[in-house]
Amino acid sequence: MDKINLKSKLNSFSDHWNPRIVAELNGQYVKVAKIKGEFVWHSHSNEDEMFMALQGEFVMEFRDRTITLSEGECIVVPKGVEHRPVAEEECEIMLFEPKSTVNTGTVDSEFTKTDLEKI
Amino acid sequence: MDKINLKSKLNSFSDHWNPRIVAELNGQYVKVAKIKGEFVWHSHSNEDEMFMALQGEFVMEFRDRTITLSEGECIVVPKGVEHRPVAEEECEIMLFEPKSTVNTGTVDSEFTKTDLEKI
Repeated sequence: MDKINLKSKLNSFSDHWNPRIVAELNGQYVKVAKIKGEFVWHSHSNEDEMFMALQGEFVMEFRDRTITLSEGECIVVPKGVEHRPVAEEECEIMLFEPKSTVNTGTVDSEFTKTDLEKI
Repeated sequence: MDKINLKSKLNSFSDHWNPRIVAELNGQYVKVAKIKGEFVWHSHSNEDEMFMALQGEFVMEFRDRTITLSEGECIVVPKGVEHRPVAEEECEIMLFEPKSTVNTGTVDSEFTKTDLEKI
């Protein structure tokens, strides 16, 4: 039951699109990630997903619109909704989602990560 | 599915120890609150609770130690663990916890809030 310093966690790795697990509660994971470039379009069958920009900004693309998130801004992507995060410059984010969540949802992609590191 | 600006949400109220709900996902609520002073000792029977300091700092007291949280730092308080948040100066926090969570857990107190506002 130690505190979690998100900046320290983020400073411990440098690769993009590879979320790390920093906390677990009530069947959910809290993750941090560095993102840059375009992710893959995907959705999650059973999991709502919350994104929060911690540093920098990124765009959440939906099929009908895009939403830009800056530091301190969050968005909840409901289950079943196709989305694609895109970051022109490197952005640091936090994620809240069920433990069952796979980063690319129902899509199998070069971005798919199935065995996330706990840091 | 709009974005949530936590700072704007926090700027919309001024009272202490009265969390507002800003998002809901997977049976969990995301809440923000302003805290100042000493809360009441309590625990939650069935809910783990995550606190994140967004601005300022606060102390999470446990029966055997205290942990100071500054901006960007989080802590998960597991179900059943007695705790008491204390903030010498006003601190803005985010909470992530099951929808069933009552702020004072199993303790009925002047601090108890049972009908939280969604903002």
